Amino acid sequence: MEKVIFSLTSSKKLAKAISEKSGIPMGESEVLRFADGEIMARCKSDVQGKICYVVQSTVSPSTETIFEVLMFADALKNAGAFEVVLIAPYFGYSRQDRVAVKGEPITAKLVAKMIEIAGISRVICADLHTQQIQGFFSIPVENIDTSTLFGQYFAKRFDELGIKHSDVCVVSPDHGSANRGRDVSSELNGASLAVIDKRRPAPNKSEVINVVGDVKDKICLIVDDIVDTGGTVNNAVEALLSKGAKEVYVAVTHAILSKGPLTPKIKEFVTTDSVEKDNKGAKVLSLAEILSQNI
Amino acid sequence: MEKVIFSLTSSKKLAKAISEKSGIPMGESEVLRFADGEIMARCKSDVQGKICYVVQSTVSPSTETIFEVLMFADALKNAGAFEVVLIAPYFGYSRQDRVAVKGEPITAKLVAKMIEIAGISRVICADLHTQQIQGFFSIPVENIDTSTLFGQYFAKRFDELGIKHSDVCVVSPDHGSANRGRDVSSELNGASLAVIDKRRPAPNKSEVINVVGDVKDKICLIVDDIVDTGGTVNNAVEALLSKGAKEVYVAVTHAILSKGPLTPKIKEFVTTDSVEKDNKGAKVLSLAEILSQNI
Amino acid sequence: MEKVIFSLTSSKKLAKAISEKSGIPMGESEVLRFADGEIMARCKSDVQGKICYVVQSTVSPSTETIFEVLMFADALKNAGAFEVVLIAPYFGYSRQDRVAVKGEPITAKLVAKMIEIAGISRVICADLHTQQIQGFFSIPVENIDTSTLFGQYFAKRFDELGIKHSDVCVVSPDHGSANRGRDVSSELNGASLAVIDKRRPAPNKSEVINVVGDVKDKICLIVDDIVDTGGTVNNAVEALLSKGAKEVYVAVTHAILSKGPLTPKIKEFVTTDSVEKDNKGAKVLSLAEILSQNI
Amino acid sequence: MEKVIFSLTSSKKLAKAISEKSGIPMGESEVLRFADGEIMARCKSDVQGKICYVVQSTVSPSTETIFEVLMFADALKNAGAFEVVLIAPYFGYSRQDRVAVKGEPITAKLVAKMIEIAGISRVICADLHTQQIQGFFSIPVENIDTSTLFGQYFAKRFDELGIKHSDVCVVSPDHGSANRGRDVSSELNGASLAVIDKRRPAPNKSEVINVVGDVKDKICLIVDDIVDTGGTVNNAVEALLSKGAKEVYVAVTHAILSKGPLTPKIKEFVTTDSVEKDNKGAKVLSLAEILSQNI
Amino acid sequence: MEKVIFSLTSSKKLAKAISEKSGIPMGESEVLRFADGEIMARCKSDVQGKICYVVQSTVSPSTETIFEVLMFADALKNAGAFEVVLIAPYFGYSRQDRVAVKGEPITAKLVAKMIEIAGISRVICADLHTQQIQGFFSIPVENIDTSTLFGQYFAKRFDELGIKHSDVCVVSPDHGSANRGRDVSSELNGASLAVIDKRRPAPNKSEVINVVGDVKDKICLIVDDIVDTGGTVNNAVEALLSKGAKEVYVAVTHAILSKGPLTPKIKEFVTTDSVEKDNKGAKVLSLAEILSQNI
Amino acid sequence: MEKVIFSLTSSKKLAKAISEKSGIPMGESEVLRFADGEIMARCKSDVQGKICYVVQSTVSPSTETIFEVLMFADALKNAGAFEVVLIAPYFGYSRQDRVAVKGEPITAKLVAKMIEIAGISRVICADLHTQQIQGFFSIPVENIDTSTLFGQYFAKRFDELGIKHSDVCVVSPDHGSANRGRDVSSELNGASLAVIDKRRPAPNKSEVINVVGDVKDKICLIVDDIVDTGGTVNNAVEALLSKGAKEVYVAVTHAILSKGPLTPKIKEFVTTDSVEKDNKGAKVLSLAEILSQNI
Repeated sequence: MEKVIFSLTSSKKLAKAISEKSGIPMGESEVLRFADGEIMARCKSDVQGKICYVVQSTVSPSTETIFEVLMFADALKNAGAFEVVLIAPYFGYSRQDRVAVKGEPITAKLVAKMIEIAGISRVICADLHTQQIQGFFSIPVENIDTSTLFGQYFAKRFDELGIKHSDVCVVSPDHGSANRGRDVSSELNGASLAVIDKRRPAPNKSEVINVVGDVKDKICLIVDDIVDTGGTVNNAVEALLSKGAKEVYVAVTHAILSKGPLTPKIKEFVTTDSVEKDNKGAKVLSLAEILSQNI
Repeated sequence: MEKVIFSLTSSKKLAKAISEKSGIPMGESEVLRFADGEIMARCKSDVQGKICYVVQSTVSPSTETIFEVLMFADALKNAGAFEVVLIAPYFGYSRQDRVAVKGEPITAKLVAKMIEIAGISRVICADLHTQQIQGFFSIPVENIDTSTLFGQYFAKRFDELGIKHSDVCVVSPDHGSANRGRDVSSELNGASLAVIDKRRPAPNKSEVINVVGDVKDKICLIVDDIVDTGGTVNNAVEALLSKGAKEVYVAVTHAILSKGPLTPKIKEFVTTDSVEKDNKGAKVLSLAEILSQNI
Repeated sequence: MEKVIFSLTSSKKLAKAISEKSGIPMGESEVLRFADGEIMARCKSDVQGKICYVVQSTVSPSTETIFEVLMFADALKNAGAFEVVLIAPYFGYSRQDRVAVKGEPITAKLVAKMIEIAGISRVICADLHTQQIQGFFSIPVENIDTSTLFGQYFAKRFDELGIKHSDVCVVSPDHGSANRGRDVSSELNGASLAVIDKRRPAPNKSEVINVVGDVKDKICLIVDDIVDTGGTVNNAVEALLSKGAKEVYVAVTHAILSKGPLTPKIKEFVTTDSVEKDNKGAKVLSLAEILSQNI
Repeated sequence: MEKVIFSLTSSKKLAKAISEKSGIPMGESEVLRFADGEIMARCKSDVQGKICYVVQSTVSPSTETIFEVLMFADALKNAGAFEVVLIAPYFGYSRQDRVAVKGEPITAKLVAKMIEIAGISRVICADLHTQQIQGFFSIPVENIDTSTLFGQYFAKRFDELGIKHSDVCVVSPDHGSANRGRDVSSELNGASLAVIDKRRPAPNKSEVINVVGDVKDKICLIVDDIVDTGGTVNNAVEALLSKGAKEVYVAVTHAILSKGPLTPKIKEFVTTDSVEKDNKGAKVLSLAEILSQNI
Repeated sequence: MEKVIFSLTSSKKLAKAISEKSGIPMGESEVLRFADGEIMARCKSDVQGKICYVVQSTVSPSTETIFEVLMFADALKNAGAFEVVLIAPYFGYSRQDRVAVKGEPITAKLVAKMIEIAGISRVICADLHTQQIQGFFSIPVENIDTSTLFGQYFAKRFDELGIKHSDVCVVSPDHGSANRGRDVSSELNGASLAVIDKRRPAPNKSEVINVVGDVKDKICLIVDDIVDTGGTVNNAVEALLSKGAKEVYVAVTHAILSKGPLTPKIKEFVTTDSVEKDNKGAKVLSLAEILSQNI
Repeated sequence: MEKVIFSLTSSKKLAKAISEKSGIPMGESEVLRFADGEIMARCKSDVQGKICYVVQSTVSPSTETIFEVLMFADALKNAGAFEVVLIAPYFGYSRQDRVAVKGEPITAKLVAKMIEIAGISRVICADLHTQQIQGFFSIPVENIDTSTLFGQYFAKRFDELGIKHSDVCVVSPDHGSANRGRDVSSELNGASLAVIDKRRPAPNKSEVINVVGDVKDKICLIVDDIVDTGGTVNNAVEALLSKGAKEVYVAVTHAILSKGPLTPKIKEFVTTDSVEKDNKGAKVLSLAEILSQNI
């Protein structure tokens, strides 16, 4: 069946890169914004009977980028598309994935259902905030794991720099990202592991940031899925340096950085093109290759 | 069954007025906006087993006000609400109600379905842009007709001003709003009707604004459902005055006014509180009474 | 994928014509009527894995022709059809598209949903009574616009008759069909436009039929989507002639004519084969070509 | 919660009787038929928040009586009904309950789904043609068993006539209704059973009607669910009399009688008011009491 | 499109046979059972874009074999299967197909719905307990009729044994299976029919097993869909022999035999491989050929 | 509205306790197991219009206890129940909540959907394995948090035993249960925290069990949600004792213990009645009170 790739507003470069890698042509889309703020996303190519890939990280402003995807999927279905596949490396609202306090929505589930009713029948994401989000969908969800991508990058990088892997310590900035750290470290033979543990030793005592594991004189590599305001990572960097770490590298899949760049104390910041932003000085690993293979 | 009313961000005053008219207490809600632009709408009252009315015109920024409604409905259902009723006097995206050009979405239908999957089981609107939008929902939709409200206001107003109803001409600014004009005029015994007709007498000739009906020396009353940028109404005012109309009054249900106030040539601008905005000099008729009766 | 076309009871000739134009073979169907009035529509061809086009205007008796479509679609799905596409040039119950008075059904929406649950996944119609009906479906709906078909016919026809286009006036018999008139007239370079406007100048006064626009000595062409009892068109013809029109032509997509032929004062009546009926003296433009292109 | 009963066209008397027995008031409905055969069923009472019982056997013309029910249910839901319950003692299209020959629809299932999407949330029927039809619905279906009603009637009737129950033989006119015969006979202490068995002793031999069981000198009581053209029952009567039966009584729940009255050789024909028809000479047992108890 | 066949635990041999007949390769599946009794069925082949046939009679332990099917279908969909088709020659819980006594579930309908939500889009069964079960599904269900398979086997078998078809009597062990008997007998030219009829001649009298039809000196062939505990068939054998039958053959599609083998008084027991079990001495007709033709 | 509580096979005592605490009467249910292993769960009480609470942990054999719930819910809906609420303190298959390896099902999601289609409209659980499972449902899910129950028990218990809270260390047996440990510890003023960390310091090296945090001379309290085979907890006990812990207490919400009792080195084992089993020597905290408050 014929295939065509579309981008909307947030992942234009990535879409083009996937198109080039895969040889699937780009279709023409248009996103209008009216005086009152309403949006209109429409399709200007013939899609009758085609499989349409819509490449768009539903990143900030998430509400609008999600809406664009929904409208555009409806437009494609109206125009006779055989199937609409969403490629959203970053999946907005993924952190609202449970009722943490009574009275809260499970917005990630709501977005999943909205994606389905808009006519999308398959979703491809990368490093979903929690793997359980796959279960919010009734349609198949491919969740790309980037740990090999990052692991191989750093294996080569540290070799170039003459850093022995046994001098490296892969650090998870909280308990939730511990598994991710373990996976990346498996590409760095001999690297040790550490976890940043924020907790109160007892109620009414102030929060203490502990570094679990030995980081003294180590080359630390902090690994996480999302960096939003940057607070968690910046605090982790401080803690590691204060415990004697030599240098701190940071590898984060989705770099939202809503409050600007991370602390300059970081030796090297590596991220992906799941979020398209001008991250000066950052090394950006493209997801285009790995996503092309999943089409 | 116990009932409770909630407002979110766009219709706080109207919600309060409905609460006062109906005697149904207000519940507590909270809408958070995070650094990356994601929203969280949550409920802080006990709603277990209650009928919850969420009062929110899904007005500019429509995408966000719709999202707030969806999240909050999900939150209410998670917290055990028996039923969630949406009171959205202005229904955002209602003008995207058909595929005008191949490749477009039917966004109003998409929003209707999203409202349903979020757990809302009844909707109350006012003067929907087209009545067929009711059919986009599988749940019951009450569409409040404001023509009596406006008609009675002007009947009284013109009496106060010593204007005879037979000197009044109710004007529809385009064909689409012709029925609305007729309905309002039925409250003004003896008023005549006119329609503004924009058309090209033949292809390749430029658009001409005709005034169908006699407006010379008349007190004109333009009636419409939505005023967004204001272009259509302003042009109509010019056309009426150029045809010898004495004065022009304007009555519009939903005053978005995304490009600021209307032309000062208008004698009096009357609208409702479906959109909450500081419309200086406008006379605002409240929908609170009529909405209270429909709860 | 293999394709096959079926007819049931209302559009046998059109189905055959589409089959001939498109080269897609006809399948065999059977519609039984039992002693108690129950119907049975069944399929006698092998449809396993095929795309099945069911050609049937859901025209009078609409209730039964709709039911035939639903049963037949279920039969096709039971027999393993890959996809069932309904080609219903005339879409029955399309005028029940809103709650005009409290207590009414939105039957067009109900029919849309019934079509979906019967297993139909795409619908092709022509000149839907209101475009918003597309939004009553969750499946894609192609709404064929016949204005070019009619426009080109009359352009050629008037040339044959030596009628100058600038002497032609395209007339909409009510406000609702004004857009349609404009579209047809765009094929007749130089033609003017008029609208029949039925309204009461004031409450309690009797309805007056106004002709908006100048029709004196014009060759009038009335354009509408549906002619059912014929009352509206017949009244329009009278009004045009009484205002000095020279001749009146009528072009209507769906000729139900439930109360028999139109007034003989009409010079020429042009319609389509969306409704198969013996309309003596009418010129019938076939939709077969245009529908074949949309398969 | 407040309750209200509606009738449409086929069960007006039964609805009234249920209203009287149950004390639940009748609401006002209206069924219009337009010139082109389209129907409009609408509600003229206030139903906001009420439980609405729609009493209508979906009997001949089944397609239309079903359509009336669907439209009316949609109308009730649009008008705010809390719940719509269908009381259809006779359920049309119930004999199309399986794919008997490849290429057929399962129309009873289709009707079941249409009932659900129209907004009906509970159905009450009597003596469904096959009990499995309950499983075609996702909503609860109450299937009233009339065997006690008929059994008790005949127990008393035969006593009045001085007929000993041991002289009675309950006869099923085909295998499918054998269980029903058994159930009725259990109210007639001492009655025997027989089954009419139509079959070919071997292929290519002509069909023979056997009477299984001894009916010589017996008072036969034929029991069945539906009598449509009357062929099966009339043949059974002939066969029983030819085998020496003294008299033949017939008890059938749903008397469609699409080809007119049954053979006059029947001593007494007993039916119910599930179908409202002037069955001269028939004894009609009302279902009003038993249905009232199930509301 | 590429196709692949999977087996789980209950129909491994049949799946392999279908694979061989059809030339469609087997895929690799795995069914794990954990210490606490939970199951995990997963797929170890690449199924992206393929049509997957899952061959599994949902036979004892039905609850678990059904669950395996559901989990595996979900796994296949998660892994990108284009379509999942269930081939379940024996369909567990098919006897719970109606509410026999108030308060019962319709489990066969529940299983049908579960199959649908697990992502299966087509089902192939053999000799469903009641044909109406097809209507419990919204997806197409192919119900293979084995009467020709059995009929042709016995036609040839009796010829080998020198048994004249006119000496054969096809016996249905209860009313419910009468049609099946008739269908099998149509392959045995000249064979007569009989039905075993269990009933109480009057209430409070004990159940009597009658043999309807003449079986004296006949070669009897009992035909049924399911033999579970074997009680019905064993009783039928006794009754036939006591009425003078010469020999009794038994042909049953689904041999569950939950209480062990049938009575040794049976001359020959013929069944299919819909249930895989070591039925010593039974002749097993494979469904592989007939199922392969339906893929 | 009237309410009634039902138990099936796994939580009979708990159901009775909830009935006593809440004053809501028990209804009568019946679970049959047939010779071939099929189950039938049916209701023997009148439930028309009632809210039915079905109390059943879907614990081992989970497949069957889930099936009982589904069948019984269907039975209740068939019998006219207004609403069916499932109270399943232990939610079976909750550990299959993501695709860990390609080709796996998300069984917890599948079970969630099955619960919904069976007609259940609200679920109450306790300590779900991951909170995100709430999002697998479209219906509201109440997830009871037992940390206060356990925390308060131990606060009192340690006081009785003269153990100072500052000598207590709350231990999470793996990273996944770290939050739970923190919550319980907040009831034990002054207690410290520790986490058991199983990891490989580098690839190809063997797994090492580290105890993160200081447990020497501490009274350790291991806190977890599920103990199944017991391996994780038993290993943690060994590790803690080898690191100098004085005594080890264990608090686990759901005690499946599929391989028998835990190591006798545990000082006290505290669990709940979410799983009904004879856990000799265990202290069982009842969930009846807390569940009664959520009805």
